[in-house]
Amino acid sequence: MSIIVQKYGGTSVGSPDRIKNVAKRVIAYKEKGHEMVVTVSAMSGETDRLLGLAKQMSDEPDERELDMMVSTGEQVSIALLAMALKSMGHEAISMNSSQAGIYTDSSHTKAKIEKIHSEKIEKELKKGKIVIVAGFQGIDENGNITTLGRGGSDTTAVAVAAAIKADKCEIYTDVDGIYTADPRFVKNAQKLKYITYDEMLELAALGAKVMHSRSIEFAKKYNVALEVRSSFSDAEGTIILKEYEGMEKVVVAGITCKKDEAKVSIVGLPDKPGIAALVFGKMAEANINVNMITQSSLSQKSGTNNISFTFPLGDFKKAQSVIETIKKELSPEEIVFDDHIAIVSVVGVGMKTNVGVASGLFAVLGKNAINIQMIGTSEIKISVVIDKNRADDSVALLHEHFKLDKLSQ
Amino acid sequence: MSIIVQKYGGTSVGSPDRIKNVAKRVIAYKEKGHEMVVTVSAMSGETDRLLGLAKQMSDEPDERELDMMVSTGEQVSIALLAMALKSMGHEAISMNSSQAGIYTDSSHTKAKIEKIHSEKIEKELKKGKIVIVAGFQGIDENGNITTLGRGGSDTTAVAVAAAIKADKCEIYTDVDGIYTADPRFVKNAQKLKYITYDEMLELAALGAKVMHSRSIEFAKKYNVALEVRSSFSDAEGTIILKEYEGMEKVVVAGITCKKDEAKVSIVGLPDKPGIAALVFGKMAEANINVNMITQSSLSQKSGTNNISFTFPLGDFKKAQSVIETIKKELSPEEIVFDDHIAIVSVVGVGMKTNVGVASGLFAVLGKNAINIQMIGTSEIKISVVIDKNRADDSVALLHEHFKLDKLSQ
Repeated sequence: MSIIVQKYGGTSVGSPDRIKNVAKRVIAYKEKGHEMVVTVSAMSGETDRLLGLAKQMSDEPDERELDMMVSTGEQVSIALLAMALKSMGHEAISMNSSQAGIYTDSSHTKAKIEKIHSEKIEKELKKGKIVIVAGFQGIDENGNITTLGRGGSDTTAVAVAAAIKADKCEIYTDVDGIYTADPRFVKNAQKLKYITYDEMLELAALGAKVMHSRSIEFAKKYNVALEVRSSFSDAEGTIILKEYEGMEKVVVAGITCKKDEAKVSIVGLPDKPGIAALVFGKMAEANINVNMITQSSLSQKSGTNNISFTFPLGDFKKAQSVIETIKKELSPEEIVFDDHIAIVSVVGVGMKTNVGVASGLFAVLGKNAINIQMIGTSEIKISVVIDKNRADDSVALLHEHFKLDKLSQ
Repeated sequence: MSIIVQKYGGTSVGSPDRIKNVAKRVIAYKEKGHEMVVTVSAMSGETDRLLGLAKQMSDEPDERELDMMVSTGEQVSIALLAMALKSMGHEAISMNSSQAGIYTDSSHTKAKIEKIHSEKIEKELKKGKIVIVAGFQGIDENGNITTLGRGGSDTTAVAVAAAIKADKCEIYTDVDGIYTADPRFVKNAQKLKYITYDEMLELAALGAKVMHSRSIEFAKKYNVALEVRSSFSDAEGTIILKEYEGMEKVVVAGITCKKDEAKVSIVGLPDKPGIAALVFGKMAEANINVNMITQSSLSQKSGTNNISFTFPLGDFKKAQSVIETIKKELSPEEIVFDDHIAIVSVVGVGMKTNVGVASGLFAVLGKNAINIQMIGTSEIKISVVIDKNRADDSVALLHEHFKLDKLSQ
């Protein structure tokens, strides 16, 4: 008998029938003897409906009041799930964030969980009840309702699992696990049985949209075993954990491709301190998220410097006008924008102890006449910027090269 | 400068535009220097939408979970009103029942307010903020969310007004005050400037649907001055209070007519103790609300007894089958049902000190060949049961007889 926390997203509770299906799944676990805590999001569409009402009140609705309003979405879905469970003959109790004791800071619409007073959850669990906790929300020390921002319900589930020392935290979503590459584009992409927190963090940052990185960081910090799986099938998902046997044999666990970035190269900048701070300071002021950065002094003689970096494609025009202001101050030789790039990344903890991953990657791309525009690395990742036209190609070639179609764990 | 509590019902906050209108009205008061607390209901239609979802989960949804769910309706409207006020440049803060400290017993869906810890409301008022409190809901001592049942938002407003010692509690509704008779049926019906709690309680019980009697009882108990007025006009409403100068001169304050009742007469019952208990016990078991009751022993010789009473027309069939069971046990001589009656009532505190009201009423009806089937009285009320066809007629005749068209206060 274990303690299991399950999280169901908005699509999984998107209609009365789907809520009943969730109830049935929860009951199946309960009947195996597990103690069950369930976290749910608002029914899909509900948050947008509420935000639409708010927009009619004000172009920039007050954030405390937004949280007060939007948090009702989860309060409705937890109550509906509890009703369904009870009507199926099982004891259940729903708890909003105040009742579940989920305390956050006061940053409305993007609050961070600070502590969980889980006594009430544990008390009801001990009575044999299925406890249903509202995802995505908390209260601050003054009792104001807060919400956690993107990926918030996942974070709630992980935090509750950590607080009650659950054996496992299952994240139900609309995909059935983490794949070696996006299965929509790469035939033979394999579902991973296991992946480490660090790999998953890299994948999340590099375009895999399954889980938000905050919840993975939380799971890593408190060592909560996560499983990502589908609420529409019974297939086993992917378990995310700190380490697993043989993990270093898996040199590359996944290949991602991010197509929603653009690139700019600023060529021939003065080679002196403070230039990077100025450039990226301006980008930050304009609230543009810079992703990959490379900098190189072309030659010490010329005394000039090149900076290239990528940023979200959606900020292309904004970035152009930011760079325009830099142009006046620094008079670079040339500025080259490129809105037709992709970032292809190879991720795996095995890289730490296996040489040759980078050289293999470069060789594959070179042999296939795919030009590399930028290179970025971390301990467990190599990313390259290439022409967007060759992106799917590259992923397939690398997937084959690293034998991911034959991966066994 | 006074402290004013205002309550707006579901129709008054039924759309974004209406919420903005409420905001403007609140601001007008605030700018006159008043400290403002506002209680709102859920947007009209919202509670029904939620109940519809619940019905899809279970034929008899769990009541704790119903309250958890339905209470979100007010949480949305308080947040929207706060957003509107802030976007118009005024400091405002919304509070759900937990934040506002509204404690009730644990009778889900029909809870009663037990105490209000109003420190938080008062603290925000002192900061100059407009405080918006969710109507219709509370929390019990274990932190469970409860709802107050019919007329609940009025009760919230009155209870908050009592707790913070407000100077006045204004109830905004879709009529602009209390009239001497229903103005839809009686031309020349006059809007009352003042009415006493006791009169209003009688009127509420007798078919005037403006306020629910629970909130009036609460106002009476804590001596909260109420004003009923329209959120769609600036007309002054009717003030409900304990007593006002000259109130005993107003012999009759209002005439009501209740057309949604039916009557049964059970003739020739055994004249012995316990009969009434048996009859009305059965009705209570069937959850039928009995209204007027008369009982008479026809003659001591016959040793029999007649009971007549009225009950909601909607329960007609249910009442017939209840009476059927009584028939077998008590073998009365005759049972006569009548689904075509009306209860006409004359209400006024002045009756206490003015003789002749009853005789005047009987004379008017007699002169106009209107047969009286039952008579019921209280200190400040006389009710008669008559044929439904003569109901509007009777009200008009009595309205004229008691000179209500010329009432001045």
